[in-house]
Amino acid sequence: MTAKERKVALVVGAGDSTGGAIAKRFAAEGMIACVTRRSADKLEPLLEAIREAGGTAYAFGTDARKEEEVAALIEKIEAEIGPIEVLVFNIGANVPSPILEETARKYFKIWEMACFSGFLNAREVARRMVQRERGTIIFTGATAGLRGKANYAAFSGAKHALRALAQSMARELGPKNIHVAHVVVDGAIDTEFIRTNFPDRYALKDQDGILNPEHIANNYWYLHTQPRDAWTFELDLRPWMENW
Amino acid sequence: MTAKERKVALVVGAGDSTGGAIAKRFAAEGMIACVTRRSADKLEPLLEAIREAGGTAYAFGTDARKEEEVAALIEKIEAEIGPIEVLVFNIGANVPSPILEETARKYFKIWEMACFSGFLNAREVARRMVQRERGTIIFTGATAGLRGKANYAAFSGAKHALRALAQSMARELGPKNIHVAHVVVDGAIDTEFIRTNFPDRYALKDQDGILNPEHIANNYWYLHTQPRDAWTFELDLRPWMENW
Amino acid sequence: MTAKERKVALVVGAGDSTGGAIAKRFAAEGMIACVTRRSADKLEPLLEAIREAGGTAYAFGTDARKEEEVAALIEKIEAEIGPIEVLVFNIGANVPSPILEETARKYFKIWEMACFSGFLNAREVARRMVQRERGTIIFTGATAGLRGKANYAAFSGAKHALRALAQSMARELGPKNIHVAHVVVDGAIDTEFIRTNFPDRYALKDQDGILNPEHIANNYWYLHTQPRDAWTFELDLRPWMENW
Amino acid sequence: MTAKERKVALVVGAGDSTGGAIAKRFAAEGMIACVTRRSADKLEPLLEAIREAGGTAYAFGTDARKEEEVAALIEKIEAEIGPIEVLVFNIGANVPSPILEETARKYFKIWEMACFSGFLNAREVARRMVQRERGTIIFTGATAGLRGKANYAAFSGAKHALRALAQSMARELGPKNIHVAHVVVDGAIDTEFIRTNFPDRYALKDQDGILNPEHIANNYWYLHTQPRDAWTFELDLRPWMENW
Repeated sequence: MTAKERKVALVVGAGDSTGGAIAKRFAAEGMIACVTRRSADKLEPLLEAIREAGGTAYAFGTDARKEEEVAALIEKIEAEIGPIEVLVFNIGANVPSPILEETARKYFKIWEMACFSGFLNAREVARRMVQRERGTIIFTGATAGLRGKANYAAFSGAKHALRALAQSMARELGPKNIHVAHVVVDGAIDTEFIRTNFPDRYALKDQDGILNPEHIANNYWYLHTQPRDAWTFELDLRPWMENW
Repeated sequence: MTAKERKVALVVGAGDSTGGAIAKRFAAEGMIACVTRRSADKLEPLLEAIREAGGTAYAFGTDARKEEEVAALIEKIEAEIGPIEVLVFNIGANVPSPILEETARKYFKIWEMACFSGFLNAREVARRMVQRERGTIIFTGATAGLRGKANYAAFSGAKHALRALAQSMARELGPKNIHVAHVVVDGAIDTEFIRTNFPDRYALKDQDGILNPEHIANNYWYLHTQPRDAWTFELDLRPWMENW
Repeated sequence: MTAKERKVALVVGAGDSTGGAIAKRFAAEGMIACVTRRSADKLEPLLEAIREAGGTAYAFGTDARKEEEVAALIEKIEAEIGPIEVLVFNIGANVPSPILEETARKYFKIWEMACFSGFLNAREVARRMVQRERGTIIFTGATAGLRGKANYAAFSGAKHALRALAQSMARELGPKNIHVAHVVVDGAIDTEFIRTNFPDRYALKDQDGILNPEHIANNYWYLHTQPRDAWTFELDLRPWMENW
Repeated sequence: MTAKERKVALVVGAGDSTGGAIAKRFAAEGMIACVTRRSADKLEPLLEAIREAGGTAYAFGTDARKEEEVAALIEKIEAEIGPIEVLVFNIGANVPSPILEETARKYFKIWEMACFSGFLNAREVARRMVQRERGTIIFTGATAGLRGKANYAAFSGAKHALRALAQSMARELGPKNIHVAHVVVDGAIDTEFIRTNFPDRYALKDQDGILNPEHIANNYWYLHTQPRDAWTFELDLRPWMENW
């Protein structure tokens, strides 16, 4: 495969955990991983890991909430690197607040990060995909996208809205040969955040009680490879011992 | 009942149809109706109708998306008119767009109107209600709040987020004796908009094929009067002949 | 109103609590209450209560799971008492079992009681209602009808199937002017069973923490009286302090 | 791998299409396929196909609705062939009826086939799996399991109940290391039935507009191989061009 023929998997919100693992997985399959987060510096270790494994990756520091930045980034990738075959939107904002103390600023920011930037990136990429009549768009969801929860009005609202975006796009773009999917991650993930803040939870790792980011990533790749006569819109993921 | 003892029903988004009918109904039950929309002038006919029927009503031109305006309005009502016993949030934004043509501005505005302003008003009122340990908050929802739909990514997202807000608040504030409910209106309503733009649909009015705003309003009053051992969070409303 | 003009409300599964309260409420509104349970003897106190309050009531000992008994009962009521205007199906079977210990007999019986008998009664009554082009059918549901639950595979399955029956009938018979509805009761009800077996729970009664059957019944009457341009298919009921 | 070490995949309801494809797939992965349907004769072509491909398969004519037959079959497989590592329950009964014409016999039979036999087989297998602390149980679902539909009260009820069974078992047996999953197949499958009865629909096959049973089968295998820190309970499958 020449460089020109290689296709891009763009992971928006490539943190240290799930997003990073997804980028590695798509790169390992021969795709060019383009990864973004607010500050490109923090993406260096991910780039190195992908390159050491023989993959190709590019990092971009982008504010995914800014329409111009998103449009410019996608234009640049398409022009200079390759056609975006896969978009993974992976920005979360799982922050609680009692409703009475929730500020307008924070309520807005959670939606802006976890939903609006998903819209911006997905629309922009979909415009290209529709012309090529191919492509996969996957959104990372959460149980909060299915049910409201005390102290999580903002996060739950953003995740509900993201799921509605995913479902609306799936219905609209499926018949244009774009596969849109939504992954409901239900449980703690093996991250530095969980290790530090929820040590009891983290201790369940020995029994596979928290989600391994690489295993999550496998599902994204799997969704991408489904033949189009049998596409999945939604699947959930949770540890075997999860109480749900 | 002296004026001082009378309680306020605040209807945010008191258009010519549903919101107006709700305000009339609560006023007819002896509550003081406070009604808002962007321009207060347009509320004059509603005020007159309520007053002619022997009710009390006040109109406010407010931009429900502006935190300061919302806070000032609610402060003013509480200080000068009476305690807000009921909040009805009734702003919609049922506007379609193919996802590829959806602008960031419009996607944002639909959420801002149909969800964010709901958050602002509900939080502000809830802060008072919680102190008094009583009150009812009702959100007007739509089927789009339950399912995504082609060409309705923005509206569906806003309505999903509004429902998540309602459900989160219901779980959080129920145990503080605040009744939070969500009404899913599924079908065309008897409005000028339907009459003008969907005449075939409007013609079903003779057979009760479109929703009568007064009948919708009855359900809001009913929800408000439910005893607290048996509160409804959600009910749907649709014409008998609706295909759903 | 002459006796001939009076219409029948048939309550299948008129126990000491919810079903009985529903029968009382419909009788208080001037309808003839026909009430059934396995053994007619146990219905005597209910009959007396309705009659003392000035209402009319008839009791029938019927096995609601037997097609011939159901058909004969409904034929008899229609021929001798009056047209069935309302059917309330209120048989439950909220019995837990670990899945590994669940017997085929019990799994079947729970479905037979809580779902199959609902089908038999609803179909039989619907056949009359469709000819008259009017009527209301209300099913008593539970949260288990919306979500599966450990140790409740049988009950949850029966309640899911009952809800599917209700929803299918609502979609099919709505356009024939039959109002089909499903009430999701979520919480402990003020019954002898709760008083005896869950005294801590029952103690919440002083704070309105358990459902009052009369208040549940009000919702059934309310659903019946909704004008047909704004029918509710589903509403939920739970105490204000319920954790859900 | 010696014969003794090989594990069994039991497919209950191994028709010519989906169930057969699933059996082939699990056999191709080295498992012993045990397949059942009412009449064992009809399974001959499937057995031959699996054997020609180098796999091992056994066929059983069983009435999956009879507890004794189910118990005997599973006992026999476990004693003579090998431990059942995977159970796939794949019996459907997608038959419409207007509710007024639905017979008690048919309503019962649809539930008995599509749900009750699922309970019998899953419970019986789960009893073994729990002792071994390992295993996978997958139920074939349908969109009718999520929403009621006019003219499908019986089928929808059975599929709702089956989904409730699956979800209840997943919550109960997950912490015992049994992976229970539910696959929602939404769309026409490439079967003789569709070819004969819905030729227009079948013609979409050229455009991948109907589901390929082999592709459905891949998802069952995939679910079986998921590591236990990230198990899927539910995924849906539909053709790209499906209107949903």
